[in-house]
Amino acid sequence: MTLEGKMLIGQKAVSGSSQPIHAVNPATGETLEPTYAGGGKAEVERACELAEAAFGSYRETSLEERATFLETVASEIEAIGDELIERAIAETGLPRARLEGERGRTCGQLRLFAAVVRAGEWLDVRLDPALPERQPMPRADLRQRHIGLGPVAVFGASNFPLAFSVAGGDTASALAAGCPVIVKGHSAHPGTSELVGRAVQRAVDKSGLPEGVFSLLFGSGSEIGQALVADPRIQAVGFTGSRGGGTALMKTAQSRPQPIPVYAEMSSINPVFLLPEALRARGAQIAEGFVASLNMGAGQFCTNPGLVIAVKGPELDAFVEAAGDAVKQSGAQTMLTPGIHTAYEQGVGRLVSNSKVREVARGQAGESAHPCLAGLFVTAAQDFLADTELQEEVFGSTSLVIECTDLEEVKRVTGQLEGQLTATLQMDDGDLDAAKQLLPILERKAGRILANGWPTGVEVCHAMVHGGPYPATSDSRTTSVGSAAIFRFLRPVCYQALPQELLPEPLRDGNPWGVSRLVDGKREA
Amino acid sequence: MTLEGKMLIGQKAVSGSSQPIHAVNPATGETLEPTYAGGGKAEVERACELAEAAFGSYRETSLEERATFLETVASEIEAIGDELIERAIAETGLPRARLEGERGRTCGQLRLFAAVVRAGEWLDVRLDPALPERQPMPRADLRQRHIGLGPVAVFGASNFPLAFSVAGGDTASALAAGCPVIVKGHSAHPGTSELVGRAVQRAVDKSGLPEGVFSLLFGSGSEIGQALVADPRIQAVGFTGSRGGGTALMKTAQSRPQPIPVYAEMSSINPVFLLPEALRARGAQIAEGFVASLNMGAGQFCTNPGLVIAVKGPELDAFVEAAGDAVKQSGAQTMLTPGIHTAYEQGVGRLVSNSKVREVARGQAGESAHPCLAGLFVTAAQDFLADTELQEEVFGSTSLVIECTDLEEVKRVTGQLEGQLTATLQMDDGDLDAAKQLLPILERKAGRILANGWPTGVEVCHAMVHGGPYPATSDSRTTSVGSAAIFRFLRPVCYQALPQELLPEPLRDGNPWGVSRLVDGKREA
Repeated sequence: MTLEGKMLIGQKAVSGSSQPIHAVNPATGETLEPTYAGGGKAEVERACELAEAAFGSYRETSLEERATFLETVASEIEAIGDELIERAIAETGLPRARLEGERGRTCGQLRLFAAVVRAGEWLDVRLDPALPERQPMPRADLRQRHIGLGPVAVFGASNFPLAFSVAGGDTASALAAGCPVIVKGHSAHPGTSELVGRAVQRAVDKSGLPEGVFSLLFGSGSEIGQALVADPRIQAVGFTGSRGGGTALMKTAQSRPQPIPVYAEMSSINPVFLLPEALRARGAQIAEGFVASLNMGAGQFCTNPGLVIAVKGPELDAFVEAAGDAVKQSGAQTMLTPGIHTAYEQGVGRLVSNSKVREVARGQAGESAHPCLAGLFVTAAQDFLADTELQEEVFGSTSLVIECTDLEEVKRVTGQLEGQLTATLQMDDGDLDAAKQLLPILERKAGRILANGWPTGVEVCHAMVHGGPYPATSDSRTTSVGSAAIFRFLRPVCYQALPQELLPEPLRDGNPWGVSRLVDGKREA
Repeated sequence: MTLEGKMLIGQKAVSGSSQPIHAVNPATGETLEPTYAGGGKAEVERACELAEAAFGSYRETSLEERATFLETVASEIEAIGDELIERAIAETGLPRARLEGERGRTCGQLRLFAAVVRAGEWLDVRLDPALPERQPMPRADLRQRHIGLGPVAVFGASNFPLAFSVAGGDTASALAAGCPVIVKGHSAHPGTSELVGRAVQRAVDKSGLPEGVFSLLFGSGSEIGQALVADPRIQAVGFTGSRGGGTALMKTAQSRPQPIPVYAEMSSINPVFLLPEALRARGAQIAEGFVASLNMGAGQFCTNPGLVIAVKGPELDAFVEAAGDAVKQSGAQTMLTPGIHTAYEQGVGRLVSNSKVREVARGQAGESAHPCLAGLFVTAAQDFLADTELQEEVFGSTSLVIECTDLEEVKRVTGQLEGQLTATLQMDDGDLDAAKQLLPILERKAGRILANGWPTGVEVCHAMVHGGPYPATSDSRTTSVGSAAIFRFLRPVCYQALPQELLPEPLRDGNPWGVSRLVDGKREA
């Protein structure tokens, strides 16, 4: 199809009248057609009006209807074919295999949420039957289910143009929860966004749903995003991006007459702990795995291992040397946008100019207009502890090794870390005691703790937590990846002594929807 | 025992050095001994230090240990005996039967949470077993559980000196979640608070737990509360009180370097809908139930029915007349504090002086120094719609009847309501169609919807939702009453490929704790 450079509001394709957006091919610096005229308050108003109108019937769709809709979105995205991959390559500089994989992940995610919707655990049905004879007071019949919060604003992420953008994890989980979604597309990949947005739009139409279930807006700067979050009809926000962007949205959401939850996934440096036995036994192998993880996607992952923590000594020196060699051989990959490239260079520059930090290695430059030269740096634990700026995320393939004098200092460094998405232990059997000492500290710092793997690569499943204490996310009680992400967009409602005909179907006698129910606090078989 | 007028920090009883607090008997105006010298930053600092130190081991207590501790708190409260009831009567003006009932509720609540802890549903254990052969990428073993957020600050409520104060619902659910608790006791009932606080203190000691699991602070004004919420070790806040107080704490919590969740239960006027058939068939009986609910506890309940909405006509006139007669015969009860009494009089005064509002009836004055004269007022829907001040909660036994021209206007009024804890339908079979039209609007406005009952009296069970959209609460995704309240103080942690010995016990192979688990998204039998 021909890209029209338009926003999608319900079933319409609409031109904006504010500042135009052009995608740039970050590999070449070339500007890509078409122009996307950004929207303003009028488009936010219209999209919110439609979303609000759609919420009533969309949230009451049957499990099967809603699940089928999510599957239809997946099929429609697949039906775009190679055009989607081509456009995403041009807009992001990401390699084909990565984008094909990401498309698979995106559609898999939509289908996972279809299964989650059908299973009905998300309803969290609870029944406490009436006890008319109870003394001193009878108990009324009480039943609970969860319903969607209302229309949700989703901000597309730059680093996952498919899996965390227009029809990505936030959108899929909000739609699964019964919430209409208004996406503010990322300006770095508007064409990819339009293609996916039209797929969602077609799925809405084919599923016979009200058009306001989905809209896609564009706008440069923060105006349209702030207007969206401030709109009284928006009831929750999903965001993946910078700490500055996330905290600005949190502030807007809290300043509303009715504050709303913001699920912002922002900043994490993902410490990797090299425990002594593992370092001794397989330092070179760990170095290889580490640099592969560091370079994945030019380091533009929220889970990129930006920090390595270990006790100093010859084994750590050997690791640093091996990792440094691998970094030196790393060919530069293209970064997602000129802005990300600039920010990366500035972040690396701060390390280079820090007198307490030693540069071990930089990667190769290559041909790209916006290359990510990998970087490896070392500093002493006491210097790291004294300089909170060294905890600032450098978004890209750069990592900082912290040399500690002993396990106690490892624990001190860990205790002073900000909240993280992940923490990784490289450990062998002999490291178990050290790992046991670290684990309680790590549990309070991170949403996910790994052993002998790498934090990049986030499985989309039921047990996943892609979350963590602030500033990793704005709300450590939740995850933005995996089936539990649906709970971000739900709230419980209790029904007391309602006649059967008035009760929502999943709460009626006989369990007509066949969902899991907690009866008097016990899980019904 | 002799009240010492002290704060309890861990196992110590401590005197503060800031402004002294005196309880006042609201029935007589008499000042009660002893004096409670309020605490300041030093006491907040010490209590937080102890709480932080206790968290590590307390959160890893076994289900049985933690449940037994909660049960011990309940036994220790019961062991205080009549002294607790006497002191609570003197400090609150509430009648003996109410306080004895509330003590039963408080201890029942602690025992419910003991059962919740033992059942282990709150751990939300999820396992996604490794898939080493999966193509194109293997899946690692992923396991999830929930852990406590960390030390929690609880603000005792004035209107439930036992059930929502020192060892009330917030404290019980936070302790159940594995979080140490620091209570800021309400200045209106410091003696009751000291008695209950010492019971908790004894239970901590008898259970062999670290002393920092519980502390009780006092302080007049907002200084100590603000210092508590601002302390970096505090990870969540439970509050029941005024909208002003709740929003001030929300602001402080959001302004921290690390923002934290505040669960504030603030303001609700709990609309009651009188549907036509029910009004025709049993208007007089409804009026009787309504005034009984209105007068319960001198209207000092978050769920007090402060608004009645119905279509105007002779049936509504008859209801208003009957309810007005009952209000006129209502003997005044003593209000909880001189401050609440003053605020109530001001709130009623605003209704009296509003030219669009008609006074139907006031109750009798009686002998109390701080009486609650019940009140019934009427206004037209169009006037209510035009004046948002009429939605302001009048905390006490006063209600406002909204006369609507038809069901459409009832729906318009409903659609313009702020968030509520409850919404009540008085309905007969013939009202089913009208109720069906109202239900979707009510679900978005309230946490609990009742038919043919009264909102006062909140069952402590599994299906209860004592929550609702802002400003009823600060977080509509949660409840502050009932077993689901535990989830407010938990966050998920995911463990990827950890060796068995390093995994938390409930996640190990063979399900050693025997808890409900979601395996590959399916509930294990």
